[in-house]
Amino acid sequence: MVDWRTGIARESGRYLASLERTDIDPFAFADAWRMRYVPAMAAVIGGSRPFVVLDTLHREMLEDVLGAYEIDVAGVGEARLVDWVRAWHRLDPWSDAVEGLTRLKKRFPIVALSNGNVVLILDMARRAGLPWDAILGAEFSRAYKPDPRAYLATAQTLAVDPGELCLVAAHHSDLGGARKSGLRTAFVDRPSEYGGAPAPDASARQEWDWTASDLIDLALQLGC
Amino acid sequence: MVDWRTGIARESGRYLASLERTDIDPFAFADAWRMRYVPAMAAVIGGSRPFVVLDTLHREMLEDVLGAYEIDVAGVGEARLVDWVRAWHRLDPWSDAVEGLTRLKKRFPIVALSNGNVVLILDMARRAGLPWDAILGAEFSRAYKPDPRAYLATAQTLAVDPGELCLVAAHHSDLGGARKSGLRTAFVDRPSEYGGAPAPDASARQEWDWTASDLIDLALQLGC
Repeated sequence: MVDWRTGIARESGRYLASLERTDIDPFAFADAWRMRYVPAMAAVIGGSRPFVVLDTLHREMLEDVLGAYEIDVAGVGEARLVDWVRAWHRLDPWSDAVEGLTRLKKRFPIVALSNGNVVLILDMARRAGLPWDAILGAEFSRAYKPDPRAYLATAQTLAVDPGELCLVAAHHSDLGGARKSGLRTAFVDRPSEYGGAPAPDASARQEWDWTASDLIDLALQLGC
Repeated sequence: MVDWRTGIARESGRYLASLERTDIDPFAFADAWRMRYVPAMAAVIGGSRPFVVLDTLHREMLEDVLGAYEIDVAGVGEARLVDWVRAWHRLDPWSDAVEGLTRLKKRFPIVALSNGNVVLILDMARRAGLPWDAILGAEFSRAYKPDPRAYLATAQTLAVDPGELCLVAAHHSDLGGARKSGLRTAFVDRPSEYGGAPAPDASARQEWDWTASDLIDLALQLGC
């Protein structure tokens, strides 16, 4: 739905400038932050850590990145750290996202099944105009995708069989988890998600039930 | 937000006619169903029963009402029972609800904090056009209002202090629970909710932070 890399680089560039660290490439900083996402969730998915929301993981990941750049976390200050983590609430949508979701919503309930916590998705939706019918996902199921519980709890909450639910996503690893849980799958290509670099989960590609160039294309394929 | 009594009477009248029980007043049937709501939640609130969603309680309450009218539940049939319970998903909004919420949404995030489960509120919202930013409430917190956990979990999920959250409700008992948990309170009068009969929680009336004749009035009082 959103271009996290451009948004996180833009905001991080501002904070890095306020710390007089304009020597750091904001896009490299954004990539370093994001690279810690899958490892950060691993302990929760593996069961060795109780569920915590993504805002909490984003904070820990940020402190880790700052350390890697030899930036003193205490010197950043609590207010700036909190606001920096909130950059994930202020991402811009891909240009087709609002129109695509609005079209899909006419025919289907559209529900956010994100690893982001509710207030993250809510802030993002209000800012970007994403017209979700409901926000479910990790905080609701207390499980991170691709843990099967994240997909199955969503189907149960919506009172549908898993096969009546379709995950729409840009990530093959996520779609693979959905398919293993019996959901239908729709891939939406985001070729510039990683700034033109190959997606880290490219090897998880399969033939999905639908493949679309963007959300408007998907809506048209589904007769919306 | 919705006129449950008219909606449940309308739908129940249809089902009762299909069972050749036109002798039963549909409004009396709706009142009998609703009367079982607080007792049905009591075991969950009291801790003697694990949390179950309101659709499940509505089903049990319906079977109990049918028994009270000497209607054989098995004779009603599973498909009709399921659909009858879903009548609670198909309630009409009060005439000011959509405009009032739309006005409030421009300035504030508007979140459903209902005892209804997610799919109930979602179906209702899609049918009625209620523009929720998110659906929280009992299924999310695994607690029924006025259990303090229902209010406090909502504040925590929205990452605000309880005093930054305002419960908007037509029920004094609900607002009393919110106030005990530190929320702000806004009462919206629904004088015809019980068909002109006095509200069963009238004795729980207090001076609330805001009192409004409808949701548009509340929006105007809040500068929306």
